[in-house]
Amino acid sequence: MIDTLKFDTICAPATGNGGAISIIRISGNKAISIVDSVFRAKKKDFKLSDSESHQLHFGDILDHESVLDEVLVTVFKDKKSYTGEPSIELSLHASPYILQKTLELLIQQGARMAEPGEFSMRAFLNGKLDLAQAEAVADIIASSSKSSHLTAMKQLKGEFSNRLKTLRQQLMDFASLIELELDFSEEDVEFADRAKFIELVSEIKKEVEQLIHSYKIGHVLKNGIPVAIVGKPNVGKSTLLNALLQEDKAIVSDIAGTTRDVIEDVISIEGVLYRFIDTAGIRKSEDLIESLGIERTYQKIEEANIVLFLLDANEISSADDIEKQIELARLNINTEEQQLIVVLNKIDQSPLPDSLIDTDFQWVGISAKSHHNLHALEGALNQYVQQFGIEDQSIVTNARHQEALQHTQSSLLTILEAYENGISTDLIAIDVRTALYYLGTITGQIGTDELLGNIFGRFCIGK
Amino acid sequence: MIDTLKFDTICAPATGNGGAISIIRISGNKAISIVDSVFRAKKKDFKLSDSESHQLHFGDILDHESVLDEVLVTVFKDKKSYTGEPSIELSLHASPYILQKTLELLIQQGARMAEPGEFSMRAFLNGKLDLAQAEAVADIIASSSKSSHLTAMKQLKGEFSNRLKTLRQQLMDFASLIELELDFSEEDVEFADRAKFIELVSEIKKEVEQLIHSYKIGHVLKNGIPVAIVGKPNVGKSTLLNALLQEDKAIVSDIAGTTRDVIEDVISIEGVLYRFIDTAGIRKSEDLIESLGIERTYQKIEEANIVLFLLDANEISSADDIEKQIELARLNINTEEQQLIVVLNKIDQSPLPDSLIDTDFQWVGISAKSHHNLHALEGALNQYVQQFGIEDQSIVTNARHQEALQHTQSSLLTILEAYENGISTDLIAIDVRTALYYLGTITGQIGTDELLGNIFGRFCIGK
Repeated sequence: MIDTLKFDTICAPATGNGGAISIIRISGNKAISIVDSVFRAKKKDFKLSDSESHQLHFGDILDHESVLDEVLVTVFKDKKSYTGEPSIELSLHASPYILQKTLELLIQQGARMAEPGEFSMRAFLNGKLDLAQAEAVADIIASSSKSSHLTAMKQLKGEFSNRLKTLRQQLMDFASLIELELDFSEEDVEFADRAKFIELVSEIKKEVEQLIHSYKIGHVLKNGIPVAIVGKPNVGKSTLLNALLQEDKAIVSDIAGTTRDVIEDVISIEGVLYRFIDTAGIRKSEDLIESLGIERTYQKIEEANIVLFLLDANEISSADDIEKQIELARLNINTEEQQLIVVLNKIDQSPLPDSLIDTDFQWVGISAKSHHNLHALEGALNQYVQQFGIEDQSIVTNARHQEALQHTQSSLLTILEAYENGISTDLIAIDVRTALYYLGTITGQIGTDELLGNIFGRFCIGK
Repeated sequence: MIDTLKFDTICAPATGNGGAISIIRISGNKAISIVDSVFRAKKKDFKLSDSESHQLHFGDILDHESVLDEVLVTVFKDKKSYTGEPSIELSLHASPYILQKTLELLIQQGARMAEPGEFSMRAFLNGKLDLAQAEAVADIIASSSKSSHLTAMKQLKGEFSNRLKTLRQQLMDFASLIELELDFSEEDVEFADRAKFIELVSEIKKEVEQLIHSYKIGHVLKNGIPVAIVGKPNVGKSTLLNALLQEDKAIVSDIAGTTRDVIEDVISIEGVLYRFIDTAGIRKSEDLIESLGIERTYQKIEEANIVLFLLDANEISSADDIEKQIELARLNINTEEQQLIVVLNKIDQSPLPDSLIDTDFQWVGISAKSHHNLHALEGALNQYVQQFGIEDQSIVTNARHQEALQHTQSSLLTILEAYENGISTDLIAIDVRTALYYLGTITGQIGTDELLGNIFGRFCIGK
């Protein structure tokens, strides 16, 4: 498949519906000659094939003898295009009629409509981007907050790929020594320093685990980090949500791609999207319907990264009171995976007990009604996100990468165990190869047609 | 207003939502320096201000220190831009976040958001397009069929403007001679040859009338020429509509901008859109509700350019029969404004009477059910459109132009009448000035701020 792809020329609209301008992208060996056959430059007798790369030309698209549109044509040559192939971008008036007719003309001249993601796939196949970078392009287009955008941009810029490639290269260097040993196995030599090897594997494992850990936040960054707001009825859950919404200066309601339902509010706080889930109040109930509502509340709590437990500050006179309330609410927070933040509301009405200072759980006192101390709550949310080092570290956002990293981790673990148990080198070598394989699939150093089809089929047309 | 406009720099998205690429347009004296302040070219130390016109540059948009996006920047200089001002087009990844942030950065650096149509208004003010050409840009974007597109493209290319400018220049040449006479009025000289002048005015009036006539089709070309299908219940109106829809190879249902309601079908036949209005059956009724339905039918007939009167061929044995049916249906067709086509359906069931050959009214025999002879009906529709010479002549599509032409026509008529009645030159001169004024408003040789605001305010943002 890959080989024949390189020889045909594809075209597709690259812009959305509406607006003043539409762009058509054409890429492939015949891109320039195909456009030349329907384009008449303003400059007399000028042909696009004579143009230098990165130059723009004004002229007409001709439908036989009649002018279909006045257009700007950009020429990309010498592999200096997105795809690495000779490419053209046509800038048309944004009329559906012109768009359709122009595509028809290009197809008549020998181009074909591009599959979704085919431009990016070619960029990968031509070595312009590695696989993780190409995947980042789709993430960048979909990103709607500063944090998700930052993560995707770092991935496009190759930070994530370079880190993985470095790890893989180090493992590869040792692996070749080990494979060498296998070739000389009868002579019982040791080319690879076992202690150093184990040290390296442990190091890589630690890094891989860090990446796996980052997925916890990475995969929810795009649609908003789920935050469950839990508490008795009337403790101020809705007031808190409204207060946060008001404080929030960014417009989040009409950002494309954020999923909302009636009980969820997506709020951007310091560039991070949070998806606040206002749960049904927690209390004991004999009523079946109400029990089902409470059941769903516990389910939502389980799915949340952060649980805000809202209490009325007037009803709290010691740290013990809070612990009792947590117990009463049967809040089984998985502290490995989740962050519990106790929110004492209505602190403007009564002073907080001094005993809170030394408690183990995280808490903040606020008044949702008067917006008092809301920034402390926002700070607590921000602190949760900060621990993942979004700004400085690579964050895994892609389920495919996470899966590959988990396979890698499990192979690395097997290697370490095998070494401890004195397993022979040839058996260890298999796991080293497996780890190398999975690390390689992320950046596409190792890839299959099927894998590529899966990845690029999810792109939009024209990318 | 116009003067200050020339000094500030405007920006706006030029593409629609979605897709892979978004374009931001920036135009004005500071366009290049503003973008330079947020752009870091791949080429080290390169500044856009050093670029030649029509060149593309790859690099990063920087939000302070962090990379907001990898972009392609096109530079337009030396008045060789759409607006005639220094301009930039930024090609971004199509993410709503990136788009919003980039616009914010540009505004921080001193640009402001463009008003709807402001780029085209500047193109007009800077002499890149005349007013009718600028208006054609909006029409081109909105056009969804070959014929409406062709008409708008000819207007953009200046055909319509050139014709008007020629007429106006000829009138102007005579007008200045007449004004000269007024200056020398005491000496009773005649610089302008009256016979030639009257000849010219008559000629111009004829051309203006032709343009006014063309509006009859011009203003309905975009949304479809209204065709009322009239006939008794069960004569085959719906069958005919379905047959035409099936024959039609173009997809018209999802073309943007076509207005539809339940009883209207927009069908493109040989590149022309027709809006078929399936009316309620015509028959006498004592029932009030049904009468109202029939009332509405007559109203639709009045609004239609073409009326298809459907009859069952089996019930027709002579031309008189048809005339009787037309009378019975109380079809008062305004033959000046409308075209009646009698459609004899079910001709596969009975032979048509020979007497039809010499009738005055236009007729076609078809079978809607078996699609027999549909092309003859399509030919009749096409013939109606052909009379306006869409392909070869200028068509008025714009209500503003039509109004100005009607004012012109009325002044020209007054001139001719005045001349016949021996009215004095100074009174004729007033009407000549009026005609010159209205002709001038169409191309913008004469214009007011208010007029410009009205015209460009209807454009989309970014155009």
